[in-house]
Amino acid sequence: MTAGRSILAELSEAGAFVHRHIGPSDADIGRMLAALGLSSLEELIDRAVPRSIRSERPLDLPPVLSEVEALAELQRMASRNARRVSLIGMGYYGTITPGVILRNVLENPGWYTAYTPYQAEISQGRLEALLVWQQMVCDLTGMEVANASLLDEATAAAEAMTMARRVGRISSRLFLVDRDTHPQTIAVIETRSRPLGIEVVVGGVAELLERGPAPFAALLSYPGSSGALVDIGPIVRRLHERGALAIVATDLLSCCLATPPGEHGADLVVGSAQRFGVPMGYGGPHAAFLACRDVHKRQLPGRLIGVSIDSRGKPAYRMALQTREQHIRRDKATSNICTAQVLLAVIAAFYAVYHGPEGLVRIARRVHRLAGMLALGLEGSGIEVVDRAGFFDTLTLQAPGRAAALVQKAAEAGIDLRPIDSDRLALSFDETSTPEVVERLLRLFGVDRPDLETLARGALEGIPAPLRRRSAFLSHPVFSEHRSETQMLRYLRRLQDKDLALDRAMIPLGSCTMKLNATSEMRPVTWPGFAEPHPFTPREHMAGYAELFRSLEAFLCEITGFAAVSLQPNAGSQGEYAGLLVIRAWHASRGEAHRTVCLIPASAHGTNPASAVMAGMEVVVVGCDTHGNVDIDDLRAKADEHRDRLAALMVTYPSTHGVFEERIKDICAIVHERGGQVYIDGANLNALVGIARPAELGADVCHMNLHKTFCIPHGGGGPGVGPIGVAAHLVPFLPDHPVVPVDPERHWRSVGPVAAAPWGSASILPISWAYIRMMGAEGLRKATSVAILAANYVARRLAPHYPIVYSGAGGFVAHECIIDLRPIKAATGVTAEDVAKRLIDYGFHAPTMSWPVPETMMIEPTESEPLPELDRFCAAMIAIREEIRAIEQGRMDRLDNPLKNAPHPAEQVLGDWSRSYSRTVAAFPVAELRRKYWPPVGRIDNAYGDRHLVCSCPPLESYRRAAE
Amino acid sequence: MTAGRSILAELSEAGAFVHRHIGPSDADIGRMLAALGLSSLEELIDRAVPRSIRSERPLDLPPVLSEVEALAELQRMASRNARRVSLIGMGYYGTITPGVILRNVLENPGWYTAYTPYQAEISQGRLEALLVWQQMVCDLTGMEVANASLLDEATAAAEAMTMARRVGRISSRLFLVDRDTHPQTIAVIETRSRPLGIEVVVGGVAELLERGPAPFAALLSYPGSSGALVDIGPIVRRLHERGALAIVATDLLSCCLATPPGEHGADLVVGSAQRFGVPMGYGGPHAAFLACRDVHKRQLPGRLIGVSIDSRGKPAYRMALQTREQHIRRDKATSNICTAQVLLAVIAAFYAVYHGPEGLVRIARRVHRLAGMLALGLEGSGIEVVDRAGFFDTLTLQAPGRAAALVQKAAEAGIDLRPIDSDRLALSFDETSTPEVVERLLRLFGVDRPDLETLARGALEGIPAPLRRRSAFLSHPVFSEHRSETQMLRYLRRLQDKDLALDRAMIPLGSCTMKLNATSEMRPVTWPGFAEPHPFTPREHMAGYAELFRSLEAFLCEITGFAAVSLQPNAGSQGEYAGLLVIRAWHASRGEAHRTVCLIPASAHGTNPASAVMAGMEVVVVGCDTHGNVDIDDLRAKADEHRDRLAALMVTYPSTHGVFEERIKDICAIVHERGGQVYIDGANLNALVGIARPAELGADVCHMNLHKTFCIPHGGGGPGVGPIGVAAHLVPFLPDHPVVPVDPERHWRSVGPVAAAPWGSASILPISWAYIRMMGAEGLRKATSVAILAANYVARRLAPHYPIVYSGAGGFVAHECIIDLRPIKAATGVTAEDVAKRLIDYGFHAPTMSWPVPETMMIEPTESEPLPELDRFCAAMIAIREEIRAIEQGRMDRLDNPLKNAPHPAEQVLGDWSRSYSRTVAAFPVAELRRKYWPPVGRIDNAYGDRHLVCSCPPLESYRRAAE
Repeated sequence: MTAGRSILAELSEAGAFVHRHIGPSDADIGRMLAALGLSSLEELIDRAVPRSIRSERPLDLPPVLSEVEALAELQRMASRNARRVSLIGMGYYGTITPGVILRNVLENPGWYTAYTPYQAEISQGRLEALLVWQQMVCDLTGMEVANASLLDEATAAAEAMTMARRVGRISSRLFLVDRDTHPQTIAVIETRSRPLGIEVVVGGVAELLERGPAPFAALLSYPGSSGALVDIGPIVRRLHERGALAIVATDLLSCCLATPPGEHGADLVVGSAQRFGVPMGYGGPHAAFLACRDVHKRQLPGRLIGVSIDSRGKPAYRMALQTREQHIRRDKATSNICTAQVLLAVIAAFYAVYHGPEGLVRIARRVHRLAGMLALGLEGSGIEVVDRAGFFDTLTLQAPGRAAALVQKAAEAGIDLRPIDSDRLALSFDETSTPEVVERLLRLFGVDRPDLETLARGALEGIPAPLRRRSAFLSHPVFSEHRSETQMLRYLRRLQDKDLALDRAMIPLGSCTMKLNATSEMRPVTWPGFAEPHPFTPREHMAGYAELFRSLEAFLCEITGFAAVSLQPNAGSQGEYAGLLVIRAWHASRGEAHRTVCLIPASAHGTNPASAVMAGMEVVVVGCDTHGNVDIDDLRAKADEHRDRLAALMVTYPSTHGVFEERIKDICAIVHERGGQVYIDGANLNALVGIARPAELGADVCHMNLHKTFCIPHGGGGPGVGPIGVAAHLVPFLPDHPVVPVDPERHWRSVGPVAAAPWGSASILPISWAYIRMMGAEGLRKATSVAILAANYVARRLAPHYPIVYSGAGGFVAHECIIDLRPIKAATGVTAEDVAKRLIDYGFHAPTMSWPVPETMMIEPTESEPLPELDRFCAAMIAIREEIRAIEQGRMDRLDNPLKNAPHPAEQVLGDWSRSYSRTVAAFPVAELRRKYWPPVGRIDNAYGDRHLVCSCPPLESYRRAAE
Repeated sequence: MTAGRSILAELSEAGAFVHRHIGPSDADIGRMLAALGLSSLEELIDRAVPRSIRSERPLDLPPVLSEVEALAELQRMASRNARRVSLIGMGYYGTITPGVILRNVLENPGWYTAYTPYQAEISQGRLEALLVWQQMVCDLTGMEVANASLLDEATAAAEAMTMARRVGRISSRLFLVDRDTHPQTIAVIETRSRPLGIEVVVGGVAELLERGPAPFAALLSYPGSSGALVDIGPIVRRLHERGALAIVATDLLSCCLATPPGEHGADLVVGSAQRFGVPMGYGGPHAAFLACRDVHKRQLPGRLIGVSIDSRGKPAYRMALQTREQHIRRDKATSNICTAQVLLAVIAAFYAVYHGPEGLVRIARRVHRLAGMLALGLEGSGIEVVDRAGFFDTLTLQAPGRAAALVQKAAEAGIDLRPIDSDRLALSFDETSTPEVVERLLRLFGVDRPDLETLARGALEGIPAPLRRRSAFLSHPVFSEHRSETQMLRYLRRLQDKDLALDRAMIPLGSCTMKLNATSEMRPVTWPGFAEPHPFTPREHMAGYAELFRSLEAFLCEITGFAAVSLQPNAGSQGEYAGLLVIRAWHASRGEAHRTVCLIPASAHGTNPASAVMAGMEVVVVGCDTHGNVDIDDLRAKADEHRDRLAALMVTYPSTHGVFEERIKDICAIVHERGGQVYIDGANLNALVGIARPAELGADVCHMNLHKTFCIPHGGGGPGVGPIGVAAHLVPFLPDHPVVPVDPERHWRSVGPVAAAPWGSASILPISWAYIRMMGAEGLRKATSVAILAANYVARRLAPHYPIVYSGAGGFVAHECIIDLRPIKAATGVTAEDVAKRLIDYGFHAPTMSWPVPETMMIEPTESEPLPELDRFCAAMIAIREEIRAIEQGRMDRLDNPLKNAPHPAEQVLGDWSRSYSRTVAAFPVAELRRKYWPPVGRIDNAYGDRHLVCSCPPLESYRRAAE
C-alpha cells in the first residue's frame, strides 16, 4: 500500500514546491551542514533547539498540493464568491485599477517584494511615490502635511483621536463623534477609547457641543455615512471656539468637487484611498491617510516621508519621522503603528498620477451625476431621497415599511444595497457604476420606463453652491506628465529600478523574515473573485471567502496550537494590541479588571510596550542576562512585586537576540502562577513552525505575522497581516465586527473590532493559504530547519571576522544571528551604518541595524536564500571587514574611505574624483561579487532632513534633479 | 437627441483609451503642429497625404469601447471557449508555465516590448536566453548547432526540406516524408514544395527507399504522429548510403528518455518547443527549432545567436548569421524567414533552466508512465494498443468499428481524443495529465474498476531498451543554477535589466512601428480561455475564438477594403508568401500558370524578393527615382517586357523611403492592364489606417503586420502575425488547413496551409481586437495622423542638423523619415553604426540603420511616443551632431572619440581611463538627458564573431564573466 502510494506519488508534483521555496538544494544543505560539522537537519534541530520546547506531535495538515492543484483549489473558492454589483458604500467603493499599474506595480515583484524604506538610498523609487501620495492627500484634503499611510480609515480615525488628545489645548476626556459616521469607524474608536479612558459620545456634534461639556476634539464625517453633505464650517468654528480640535473623515473623490475639509478649518483629516485604484478585496488591504496642520506634524503617528540631501547635496527622499516613534520611545510612544500600507498607498498615488486632476474631476462628476440621476428618477415614485440638498455619491432613501423588501429585491437582481432599518436604505455609486445600473435600480424601485437621457440632462446637483470646490489641486507637474500609458509605464519602470528588492538580492533583515513570495501564492490576489467583493457583502454570497477563512484559521491553529484565530488584525502591531485587549477582557470577566501590569523584557521590540500602553496597561521592564535571555530572577522578582496586578508577560520567542531560550516554559509558569497571561510575540515564528508550538510553550496568546512567516510580501512597507491565536478560555473575547458578525454562531464577549473590516486584509490571505498547502507539514518543518541552518551557516562563516553576540547553549543561534561592530567602532570609527551603506555598493540591502543591541547587525537569511547568495553576502561582509582592517592598520584614511563615503552612485564615481581610493574600489570592490546595483543617490543627510522637514513634492527643479 | 447622447457619453469612458495610446496630449499635438506651421491634424493630412489616395469613406467600425468594456467583451468570448481536457496531441500538448516565468517574462513588458536584437549591446539579456535555447535544442536533440527559433514545426520542416536541398549531395527533386508525420506538417511541406518543383512522396520511407529513386532527403518522425517510437537508425543509415540527408521531426520531451535523433545520425532535426511551458493558445505562437550538423551551420535559415567579444575583449552575444539572409541576398536568399519566435523561445529556454535535466526527465517519465498505465489497463478490454512495443506519450488504439463512438463518448465527458478513422483513435498525455484521467479513460473504454496503483506499478515500458537515452544533456551550469524560485526570479530580472525595451525608452525603428502595447490589450493573452485550447479542438467548443476571428477579420477588411482576410500567416514574411501563392493560384485557375514574373522595386525590403522566389516566381527589379519613388517609366517598360508572363507587382505603401507616392493608383493600373496582380506590402500600414485603404489604391492582396500596426508586441524578435487581405476574386484561394477546415461553409480552391495551425498565432489576436475596439474609427484615424505628425516633427527638428533624404511633394514625409549620414562619413569617418552605438550612451535604441539607403537612419517615432520623449531623442541626435562637429573641426580625434568608442559600459568608464575625453562625456553626455541605461558590454566585434562562430553556451568561466 505504501509502496503503491509512492509510485502514484511519483506521478504527482505535490511537494515539488518545497524545493522551489527553499533556496538551498539538498546538496547545498549537505554542504552547509558539513560546514557546521553536522550530518542532517534533524541533528541540527536536535542541537540547536532545546528538547524541552520541541513539540511531540508533528503538524497535522492536509496533504500537500502542487502549485497547479493549490491554484485550482483557490480558483474554486474564488468562484464561490458571487460577482455582485455592490452599491453598499460605507467607505468601500468599486474602482478600476489602471492596467498599467495593475501589471507593473501590484503584480510586479520589483514593487511588492521590497522592504520598508529604512535604507533610504536604495528605496528612492517608492519614497518618491510615497511623497506623491502625501502631496496628493494634502492637495485633495486641503491640508498641509499627510503621513505615508495608515492601516484603514477606522484606525486612522482612532489614531487621529489620540493625536488630538496629545496636541489639543484642553485636558478633557470627552471625544464627540458625528453620528453620521461609518459604523465600523465608530466601533474601532470605541474599542480604542476604552482602555485609554477616553469617553466617546456619538450624536449630533452641533447639539452635543451646545448642551454638553467641551470635548478635546470631535470627529465629523464629510460627506456623512448616509451620503449627506453639509457645511461643516460652522461646527468646526464652534469646536475651535470651545478649544477643541476638529477631525474630519472624508472621501478623497468627493474632495474633487466639494470644498475640502482643510478649507473648512479642519485640524486633522482622515480617510481611505481605497477607491483610488485599489480593489476592495473583501475589506483590504488599502491605504488610509491622516493629514494635519503644519504645526502638528511632529506628532503625526506612522511614517512621514521627507526630502533631504545626499552627500553631494542632491535632493533625496527618506523616512523623516519614524525614528521618533515606537522603536525608541517604547512605552512613551504615541502609537504602536509600525507597518503602513505602502504598496497600496503607492498604487493610489499612481492612480492620481495616471488620471491627474482633470481625470479625477471627470470621474467624480460622473459618479455624482449618477446619484443625481437616481434622485431625479425617484421623484414621484413614493421613495424619498433623504438629503436632496447635499450629496456626492451616496443617497439614503426613505421607503417607509418597504426598505427591507427593496434591498431584498435588488439583492435578487444581483445588486447589493445598504440596509439601514425598516424604513431606510442607502446606496453609493462609484467609478464602475453605469447609467444602466441607475436604470435597473429605478425599475426595481417601481419607476416605469426611466429615460436615461432625460435623467442625465436634469440630474440633481448635490453639491450646494457654497460647498463647491474652487481651489486648484494636484498642480505639481508629476500629476500631469504621465498621462499616456507609455509615459506611465516608463515612469513606473524608472522608479522601480531605483529600488533594491528581493527580486534582485537578499534582504537579510533580522526579525523581518524576507522570504520568497512565490508567484503561485501571489496570483490569486488579483483574481476578480478575491479582489472585487465589498467587505459588507451579505455572507451568503461569500462562500469562497468563508471557506478560505475557516481553512486558514484551522491551519494556523494547528501550527500554533491554539484553540482559535482571529484574522482581523491587519498588522503585527494590531495583533499585539488585540491580543492584549483580549487578555484584559478575560481578567475583567473574572472580576480582575485591576490586573493591568504588563511585564516586558528589555530586549523587546519597541512596539510591545507601545501596544501595552494602548491597551491601557502599565509596562514593567524585565532585565536580560548577558546571553540575551530573560533574567529569570528579575522576572520572578517583578512578577512577585506586581503579583496582584499582574496582567501579562509579553515575550518574543525565539528571543529578539535570535536565541532559543531554554527556560521559556519556566518563564510562562512563573507568570501563570501569579495570575498573569503570557503573550508571545510571533515575529520569530519562522523559527518554530513544525518544530514547536507557542501554545505548548505556555502562551495564551500569540500573533503571527503572515507577512513574515507566511509569505505575504512586505510591499515596500506594508500590507501586513497580524492574526492572533488564543487559548480556549480567551476565544469569546476575540475581535468582532459591528456590520458583519465574524462568527454568528459563537457566543461573544468581544473586545470589539480593532480594524475596519471583519477579516482585515482578506484579499491577501490566499497567499498564506497557498504557502501552507503547497509546503505541507513536512515542507514547513523543513523550511524552519533550513532557516535555522542558514542563520548558523552565516554565523559560522562570519564568526572569524565579526564576533557573534549571542548564541544558545549548544553554541547555535536560532534563525538569525547578531554580529558585533562595537569593537570596530571603537578601533576605527566605522559604524554599523557605515557598513550598512557600504553593503549597498556590493549590491545588498543591509541587515537590521543596531537593534536590539546598538552597533550590531542582526542577520536573518531565511530558508529561501540560495547558498550562492548566502556565500555572496558573506563574501561581501568579509571584504568589508578587510576594508575596515585597512583603516585599523592605517592603510586607509579614517574619514576618506569607501565605508564613510558609501554608497557611491554612478554620477559621483564618474565625476571629479579626489578620493584616496580608486573609482573601481568604490563601485566594483570585488570582481566575483559583480552584480551591480547603482544607488540613485549618495548617503542621505538625516540631520539636514530633520532640520528642514519637507514632506510634499519639492518644486519642479529640485524634483527633476532628484528624479534623474 | 444628439445632445442627450453626448450627456450620456460623458458618463462613459469609451474613447478614453485613445488618449492613453497616443503619446502627445492634445496640447502637445498643437505645439507639434505649430512647429510645422500647421493648424490642425486635418491640415497635416491634407498636405502630407495626396488627395488621390485618400479614402472617401470613413472607417465603419462598431462604437468604441472603454478598456473595461473591451476586457469584458473578451472575457465573454473567452468563456465561450470550453475548458476541455485535451489529449489530441499531434504536436500540441498541455504544459504548465512556471508562475515565475509567466509573470516575469510572458506578462512583463520588459521582455515583450523589446525589439529584434539587431543592436546586440542592448540586447544581451535575451541574446543570452536565446543562446540557452540553442544549447537546449542541441543537447536534447543530440545535434551540434540550432537556430534561434522558427515559426512552427511545420514551417521548420519545410525549411529543413529546402535547406537539405541546398546542402545535399545529390541533385534530386524527390523528397520523402514518413507517412507517420503530423498531417499539418505534411500539408505545409506540400504547399511549400509545389512552387519549388520539389516532388513530395508520403509513405513508408524504408520501402520507398528500397523500390524508388534516391531522394535528396527524407523527413522521419520520431516518435511518429501515431505515437510509434521505432529505431530510425537503420533508415538514416540507408538514406546516407543513397546520398540523401535525414531530417527528423522530434519531440523535445521524448528526447529526455529516448536516444536523440542526432545519435541516430540525423542531419537535420526539427520540432516544436511548445510543450516547454508555452500555452497551446489554440495554435500559437510557439517556438519551433531547426538543428543541424556543424558542417551545415552556415546554411541555417533564420537567426543564429553567437558569442563574440566586445571592444575590451569581454565575451558578448550577438546575432551571428542573420546578415547573410534575405536582407542582403534578396532573391538569392535561401529563405524568407525574418521574424522568429523570440519571446516563446525564451520562455521554453527558461522552462529548461527552471526544471533542469533531472526535472525534465521526471516530467517525461511521468508522461510516459501515464501512457504505460493506460496501455496496461486496456489489456483484455478489446481495445488494442497499436504500438505496444514502442511509444512515449501517445497511443494509437484499435477499436474496430467503435472508434468514433469512443471519441464521442469521451468528448461528452469533456475529454478530447484524436479521431483517426472508424477503427482507430489516438491520445497523448502531457505534463498536465493526471492518473485520474487514465482512470476516467479506462472507465469510458469500458474497463471496470481500474486500479491505479496496480497500473502504476506495472505500467508498460514504451521505450525499447536499445532506444533508451544514455547520453547526458543540459550539463551546462545554467541548467542547474536556477532551481529555486528566488534564484530564477533574480536570473530573469538580471537578464531583463540588460536589455533596453519600450518600457524604458523610445525605439524609433523605421518600418517596424514600435508603438504602445497596452496592458489591457495584453491581459487576455494569458487568460485560460484563450491560452489553453488545443488548436484541433472540435470547433463547436470554440465559439469564443470563432467570434473573435469573425470580428477581427471584419475589422481588418473594413480597414484595408478587402473582401476577406486570412489570419493564418504567423509572420509578415508568411503573409507575403501566402499572398503570392494566392496570386499564382488565381492565375493558374484562369489557365495562366505561366505568369510567374514578379516586379519588385529596388527599394523593397529584402523579404519581398525572397518570398517571391519561394512562391516560384521570377523577380524583376524596377528602379526608383531620386525621390525614392517607383520609376514609372521603368515600371512600364518592365511590365511591357514581361507582359505575357507578368504575375504581380510587390510594392510597399507608403514607400520604404517613407513617402506617399502620388502615383500609386497609376502604378497599380499599369500592372493590372498587363494582366498582373498588385501585392501591397503592409509594413507601413500605420500610415494609412483610417485615411486610405490598400484595396482602394488598387491592391489585390496586402498583408498586415499585426505586430506593427495593431499593437502585438515584438517580443524581442517575435511573435509576429501577418494576415493577408484579398480582393473578392482571390478569396477561394486563401490558406486552409488539413485538420480543422478554416471555413467549412466556403468553396475552397485553397493554396493549402502555410502554417501549422488553422488560425496561426490565435492567442495573440485579442491584442489587435482590443486595440481596434478601444480606439474606434476616429481613434484609429487620429493615431495615423499623429504618427505622420510625429515623423514630420522629428524631420523638421533634425533637418538643420542632418539632411532628410526623401520627402513627398509637399515637403512632408509619411510616418517615418530618413536622415542622411553619408556626408558625415565622408567628412569625419563617423558611420551610421557609430551614431547608433553612441545613442546607447544617451539611453536610446537606434533607428533603423543603413536601410533602405546605406549610411542613413530611418526614424519612425509612431503615435505612441510622448512629445518629451521625441524632444529627448532629437536633443540626443543634435548633441551627437555636435560631437561629430568636434571631429570635423579637429577638436576631437578621428579615432579616439565618444562615437567610435561607444557604447561605454560602466566597467569601462570606471576602469583605467586614457581616452581623450572625460568619463562624464562618455557616460553622461547631456545633463538634461540623464536617464541612464548602462550597456552591459562595449561595442561588439562582429568580425571576430564571424570568424569564431560559437553558437552554444560558452564554458563556465567566460560565461560567468559575460553574465556579470
